[in-house]
Amino acid sequence: MDPRLVEEAYPLQAHLGFRITEWSEGFSRFELPLEPFLMNRFGIPHGGVYATLLDTVMGYCGSYTGDPDTRKLAMTLSMTVNYLSRPKGKLLIGEGQMTGGGAKTFFADGIVTDETGEKVATASGTFRRRG
Amino acid sequence: MDPRLVEEAYPLQAHLGFRITEWSEGFSRFELPLEPFLMNRFGIPHGGVYATLLDTVMGYCGSYTGDPDTRKLAMTLSMTVNYLSRPKGKLLIGEGQMTGGGAKTFFADGIVTDETGEKVATASGTFRRRG
Amino acid sequence: MDPRLVEEAYPLQAHLGFRITEWSEGFSRFELPLEPFLMNRFGIPHGGVYATLLDTVMGYCGSYTGDPDTRKLAMTLSMTVNYLSRPKGKLLIGEGQMTGGGAKTFFADGIVTDETGEKVATASGTFRRRG
Amino acid sequence: MDPRLVEEAYPLQAHLGFRITEWSEGFSRFELPLEPFLMNRFGIPHGGVYATLLDTVMGYCGSYTGDPDTRKLAMTLSMTVNYLSRPKGKLLIGEGQMTGGGAKTFFADGIVTDETGEKVATASGTFRRRG
Repeated sequence: MDPRLVEEAYPLQAHLGFRITEWSEGFSRFELPLEPFLMNRFGIPHGGVYATLLDTVMGYCGSYTGDPDTRKLAMTLSMTVNYLSRPKGKLLIGEGQMTGGGAKTFFADGIVTDETGEKVATASGTFRRRG
Repeated sequence: MDPRLVEEAYPLQAHLGFRITEWSEGFSRFELPLEPFLMNRFGIPHGGVYATLLDTVMGYCGSYTGDPDTRKLAMTLSMTVNYLSRPKGKLLIGEGQMTGGGAKTFFADGIVTDETGEKVATASGTFRRRG
Repeated sequence: MDPRLVEEAYPLQAHLGFRITEWSEGFSRFELPLEPFLMNRFGIPHGGVYATLLDTVMGYCGSYTGDPDTRKLAMTLSMTVNYLSRPKGKLLIGEGQMTGGGAKTFFADGIVTDETGEKVATASGTFRRRG
Repeated sequence: MDPRLVEEAYPLQAHLGFRITEWSEGFSRFELPLEPFLMNRFGIPHGGVYATLLDTVMGYCGSYTGDPDTRKLAMTLSMTVNYLSRPKGKLLIGEGQMTGGGAKTFFADGIVTDETGEKVATASGTFRRRG
């Protein structure tokens, strides 16, 4: 990935600690180390953490331009998250893949695994292009 | 709400700042002040913030016991979030309402508004009871 | 409901037997008698039957004009259906309610009950306006 | 596929015309010829038709036993359908793939294409095992 495409972390990104590791046409990957502050009342990652990562990777995968000076923006219309398992490792890896759409809206699938390969959550989403 | 039902904030709850304000059979409400660290790259609350609040209120609404010493636990199986609008105010208010289910699974609807009454996001979820 | 708003049943509508019984701004209701041909391999209504009714009522609720000569069209982008129970009666009643949106997209909730009041399924959907 | 696994079409299946063409552990495929009675008020297949096919293939993919005398049963808890495009051909092909789960619940993804390869709709679902 062209390092010039890495934007400065926005506030929630910095607060939770996820970072982009891959971005290309129709695809994005972010990683999130499993810090203690991400845990729920059962001591496992809160479902909202996966949802945050999935919303992020799906929105990015449909917003690639390859040019740091040209940004495409996307608004999430709807997102569904399925909670398959819990992580065995210490790093969440989120990947988004565009599945369809056109000039006004796009569709994406997302998946969260960890560094052991455990499949933790999947998602699909509908997004509207802006600007 | 019986103040003895208010548990100590778990890690993600403390990190994001949401707090329970109502809990009864089939219903829960949490509030989240819109602090700067919740914002996305467009300067508005990240979609994952609503998802986190909605997952929380829907899970709680189906886990009420009324007894601080008896806890019911719920695991999210699936959640869908619809992003209707952006908040006009400074406080997110999430409410969860159980809509059906039985001994093993339950269903819930959720909504996020703000203190101006703006409807920001809605959700539905499927949960499995544990323990 | 103005009887002039009742359009001739389109092909799938005639084939399954659902009919509109209410239509107003942001709301629609259809009914579907539970005929034997709607059943699945377990002898209960196929989940696709509820999905069909829910997609229909949610699409209609956001397409009301009140004028038989002016039609608004809607395309479903995404729909989530939650299967709460099975019907106790012989008539499915589907209702759709618009929950938000604007000029290009709208959001709706849907519910299927039966004539005994049993809550059978709920849904939410995202729709794009056409034309 | 072992032809002894092909059950007699149940009522809705016969009424709409879909038929199983593949079934193995974690996977199923059904096909549905696009007959006129499947169309909506715009002359294209009703969204409920895709939902019916997707619910079917996802439920079957998690219910394979390989033994015609032993049946596993599944109830849909929740299903999300994304409507990507419209078919260019005359045959809908639905495929379901199990993505996770365990003894009590399972998760599946589904896709509908046509014989030209056009990707028409995708889905994910949560299912509860019965019996």
